[in-house]
Amino acid sequence: MSKAPPQLKLPSPIKVLTKMLNKEVVARLKGGVAVKGVLTAYDGCMNLVLDDAAELDKSGEPLTRYGRLVVRGSQVIYVSAIEASP
Amino acid sequence: MSKAPPQLKLPSPIKVLTKMLNKEVVARLKGGVAVKGVLTAYDGCMNLVLDDAAELDKSGEPLTRYGRLVVRGSQVIYVSAIEASP
Amino acid sequence: MSKAPPQLKLPSPIKVLTKMLNKEVVARLKGGVAVKGVLTAYDGCMNLVLDDAAELDKSGEPLTRYGRLVVRGSQVIYVSAIEASP
Amino acid sequence: MSKAPPQLKLPSPIKVLTKMLNKEVVARLKGGVAVKGVLTAYDGCMNLVLDDAAELDKSGEPLTRYGRLVVRGSQVIYVSAIEASP
Amino acid sequence: MSKAPPQLKLPSPIKVLTKMLNKEVVARLKGGVAVKGVLTAYDGCMNLVLDDAAELDKSGEPLTRYGRLVVRGSQVIYVSAIEASP
Amino acid sequence: MSKAPPQLKLPSPIKVLTKMLNKEVVARLKGGVAVKGVLTAYDGCMNLVLDDAAELDKSGEPLTRYGRLVVRGSQVIYVSAIEASP
Amino acid sequence: MSKAPPQLKLPSPIKVLTKMLNKEVVARLKGGVAVKGVLTAYDGCMNLVLDDAAELDKSGEPLTRYGRLVVRGSQVIYVSAIEASP
Repeated sequence: MSKAPPQLKLPSPIKVLTKMLNKEVVARLKGGVAVKGVLTAYDGCMNLVLDDAAELDKSGEPLTRYGRLVVRGSQVIYVSAIEASP
Repeated sequence: MSKAPPQLKLPSPIKVLTKMLNKEVVARLKGGVAVKGVLTAYDGCMNLVLDDAAELDKSGEPLTRYGRLVVRGSQVIYVSAIEASP
Repeated sequence: MSKAPPQLKLPSPIKVLTKMLNKEVVARLKGGVAVKGVLTAYDGCMNLVLDDAAELDKSGEPLTRYGRLVVRGSQVIYVSAIEASP
Repeated sequence: MSKAPPQLKLPSPIKVLTKMLNKEVVARLKGGVAVKGVLTAYDGCMNLVLDDAAELDKSGEPLTRYGRLVVRGSQVIYVSAIEASP
Repeated sequence: MSKAPPQLKLPSPIKVLTKMLNKEVVARLKGGVAVKGVLTAYDGCMNLVLDDAAELDKSGEPLTRYGRLVVRGSQVIYVSAIEASP
Repeated sequence: MSKAPPQLKLPSPIKVLTKMLNKEVVARLKGGVAVKGVLTAYDGCMNLVLDDAAELDKSGEPLTRYGRLVVRGSQVIYVSAIEASP
Repeated sequence: MSKAPPQLKLPSPIKVLTKMLNKEVVARLKGGVAVKGVLTAYDGCMNLVLDDAAELDKSGEPLTRYGRLVVRGSQVIYVSAIEASP
């Protein structure tokens, strides 16, 4: 909108998703739904494609497994890469 | 918006739905509703047409059967192809 | 947006509603509301006009009858033609 | 958007509200709220003006009476003319 | 959008709010919240300014009093002038 | 949109927030959340900056204190200046 | 939109987030979710990137830890820097 030097130096939150590509992510969605899977695609609306995916129960355990999930971005609360526990 | 080479190589999540055409999919919708059916059409808003469709109960069993469902994209949480169990 | 040959061949989900015109449909709406009636008009937002309509209770039985319902598209979860049981 | 002959012949759902002008209507709104009153104005967003209006309780009985209600269209689920019982 | 003679004769629902200026109104808002106060300003989004205002409890009694409330239009379900009881 | 003389004389509800600058305000937000603090900035979406802020419990008592809160306008139900009790 | 001198002097609420960069923040999100982490990026929609992040339980204790969270701005209720307790 206007010249905002500090903001220009920041990475776009959406582009930070690029670093999660081909990694396993967990996404918390509206309606109390959580899913995990390997992030293979996303767009600027945060629409996501997750492979080897699963819907998770409250304790984070897989409830239903899906080969591939297309998640609607408007339903996403947050996305996070799952890091390997040491 | 700007040149984002990594993103350009990605398939659009919406276009990934093309690979689910004429396959049985399950779609989780807002309001705790889930449906399944053969995906015969979709558009960029994730509006979906499902043939040989059914609304599912909590355990994933068909609750009400419909010949054809038109689902409003803004209500979709995720869509997944149902793979044949081996 | 761009040339997407497979998508161009698909019927628009909204236009699939044309085949439901003058047929009895059931529409599941937000807020746990379901209605049925003869679809006599719709537009690109999925605003619907249902004649000889009724709001349905949880088991799908008519709860309140209405001569004509105008349904706001933004509240629609899905629409389906009710097929005659053989 | 494109040439859609069948759709062009349809009345717009919004314009169907014209036939309800100066008639008593019931409107189901979000948040479990229902109101009735004489429809004296509306616009393309389904904003409504209801005269001799009332909020209704679960059984459809008047709960609170209002001389005039201005209803925000984005909160409307459906609108229906109340027909005189024979 | 197009020529719609009947609609052009109607007052805009938003402009009907003009007649409620400087009168006490009650506004039902999303989230089960209701407020009342003297309407001293509004805009086309139904953003409202209420003076000598109060949030109301379920039975319509003042719960918390405020000198002036700025209400966000997108949260408004309906607005009504409170008429003097005879 | 069109010439609306009465409306032009009204202050914009958003600009009424100017009079609340540097005063303590309470803001009721979606999801049953309420906050208070000194209003030090706002914009046309009702995004708010509150200093010396706190989230409030149901009875209006501070639950969690924050030096500075940035509130997203789309979540605001209403904003009010807290007046000093005499 | 129009000349509004007082508003022009105000910092934009979104830009106030700049002062929270590289600090630990807590963000309350829709659906009763709260997260904390070091704010490393944001954009004009309030999309956030939080490093060394965690989802919090009702009492504000870490429930699930995440290396990096991308939060969708449309789900944010408020953001606050966590100040060091003296």
